[in-house]
Amino acid sequence: MILTVTLNAALDITYRTPALVPHGSHHVTEVSERPGGKGLNVARVLAALGHETVVTGFAGGRTGDVVRELLDGGRGTGGAAPGADPGTGPGTGGGAGTGGGTGDGTGTGPGAVFKPPVDALVPIAGSTRRTIAVVDAASGDTTQLNEPGPTVSAAEWAAFLASYDRLLGDAEAVALCGSLPPGIHVGAYGELIRRARAAGVTVLLDTSGEPLRRGIGARPDLVKPNADELAQLTGAREPLRAARDARRRGAHAVVASLGPDGVLAATPEGTWQASPPAPARGNPTGAGDSAVAGLLSALVEGLSWPDRLTRAVALSAATVLAPTAGEFDAGAYEDLLARVAVTEHLPA
Amino acid sequence: MILTVTLNAALDITYRTPALVPHGSHHVTEVSERPGGKGLNVARVLAALGHETVVTGFAGGRTGDVVRELLDGGRGTGGAAPGADPGTGPGTGGGAGTGGGTGDGTGTGPGAVFKPPVDALVPIAGSTRRTIAVVDAASGDTTQLNEPGPTVSAAEWAAFLASYDRLLGDAEAVALCGSLPPGIHVGAYGELIRRARAAGVTVLLDTSGEPLRRGIGARPDLVKPNADELAQLTGAREPLRAARDARRRGAHAVVASLGPDGVLAATPEGTWQASPPAPARGNPTGAGDSAVAGLLSALVEGLSWPDRLTRAVALSAATVLAPTAGEFDAGAYEDLLARVAVTEHLPA
Repeated sequence: MILTVTLNAALDITYRTPALVPHGSHHVTEVSERPGGKGLNVARVLAALGHETVVTGFAGGRTGDVVRELLDGGRGTGGAAPGADPGTGPGTGGGAGTGGGTGDGTGTGPGAVFKPPVDALVPIAGSTRRTIAVVDAASGDTTQLNEPGPTVSAAEWAAFLASYDRLLGDAEAVALCGSLPPGIHVGAYGELIRRARAAGVTVLLDTSGEPLRRGIGARPDLVKPNADELAQLTGAREPLRAARDARRRGAHAVVASLGPDGVLAATPEGTWQASPPAPARGNPTGAGDSAVAGLLSALVEGLSWPDRLTRAVALSAATVLAPTAGEFDAGAYEDLLARVAVTEHLPA
Repeated sequence: MILTVTLNAALDITYRTPALVPHGSHHVTEVSERPGGKGLNVARVLAALGHETVVTGFAGGRTGDVVRELLDGGRGTGGAAPGADPGTGPGTGGGAGTGGGTGDGTGTGPGAVFKPPVDALVPIAGSTRRTIAVVDAASGDTTQLNEPGPTVSAAEWAAFLASYDRLLGDAEAVALCGSLPPGIHVGAYGELIRRARAAGVTVLLDTSGEPLRRGIGARPDLVKPNADELAQLTGAREPLRAARDARRRGAHAVVASLGPDGVLAATPEGTWQASPPAPARGNPTGAGDSAVAGLLSALVEGLSWPDRLTRAVALSAATVLAPTAGEFDAGAYEDLLARVAVTEHLPA
């Protein structure tokens, strides 16, 4: 199975309203809720691709209860099949699609049963945070309000580490995703990477800032920063130079997302750029998480770097194209797989 | 006891952020939650004044669970005593004050034990709505986001009516407060008023629009619209004329709130205006609900109209002055009681 870690999980709430006016009063016309936090998003896409997936991290309070309920009824998640009811009423998690079924080696035919991610979240005393995305009904523009995460105690962190070590015993790969909640030391990802490596489990890190800097020093197999995060880490604004610099700092491979232009990969086997046939227009929420799921699933399946990048770019663009934030359009994904262009950068 | 009815209860969430920028991303620096909906606010103030209070209406889903938990731990509510910890962390309901103790006839000395309102909310399948107040940390200006209420089924309304009739048996007075959730017919307040009158229970109505118009026709003892609601109802912009018109439509007495200028009352015993010594500056959230609590408590205690209006105006201004939205400053309340000016309008 593939394990994803979300230390700062969230309940993602989306409100549709007429245009947001500061200091005004707004009637919300539509409310939807889904489990949030990068690792949970990655897990939904992995599950839609047919991979056995386990999620861990922390959940607490009433909000944590809702996150766990929505995960459990996880049919309503990534990879909505065309024509599936997106189900946006209060308390539902999204569409009822099975996703996957792409003929690219995932082995899940269109009839495969979707298995939602298994919930191995560790309970905490604090309340899981909420994020609120206020979407203007007319323009589709989004205003984001993010609650601070709950403070995690030393005992809760110790309980998590014990559970994490057990889960690593069954994992082929692990993705460490997102920000660190209050109470978790900034070197936490370094510790999780060292434990994964000691257990012989492939480890991917997707975070930013100081947690990324510290994590890279622990030599993860793969990091997936965006161009801004990479520039902030290395000081180099040119993505290829920055990606190579990040490799020198400890990452075995670096896949930098270039937004609508695709991804750039610096790896021990070579350097590639992969691009969609045209920049996808739509809601980019979750596109990076879909890219992580594409990379990690293809890596576990033993695909080559060009095929890994193709899958990451196709999933990412299919997520931008999907009407519901964070889901991917399964039809667009299949179509894009054949149309992503991969170019090798030869050493200068 | 005094009964308050909140058919469209809410979980009121307050976020503090740096200035709200449409289409931007915001880190919420502080989160607080409290039971919301006008009837619950009125009940907290009544309880702080030392009255036995029961709340009914509807609650459902995880959000309803939180509302009921916060009510139950209701020490953290209206009427924070000076120096009490306002307790604004996530999941807390406010201060630990006992309120009351004013020497104006409530009979609750400063040492009186605060008894939180008794929860008689009727469970429903839908989820209680949330309201989110986003407060700019610098200016204190508030942007309001209000979820739609859950749809109430015919069976749930029937269950409520049965419970309401039982509760009326023990009630001296009942306050019917706020908007109607989806599924409740617009004449619902008329029905509740008729049942209260049949049971010999004094009934106050505080709502707006068509539910107010329909409710007045059922001859409530008292309505408390603000000047805008009254003008919308009667077509008359001049408050005294509008209040008299509302009496002709069926309300035995009308107390119109004039915002910072106090209240205007048109009653069978006469017409009065009551004004604070100066317009209170602060957060007006909940000031109208405090006025309702002042009117209803004084009415039950048998005070005269001038004393009822004095209490309503003092409580309302003390709510505007309190640092936490919807609570009242007990010290300011006592001080204001002696300084509210009541003027009788002699018939023209």
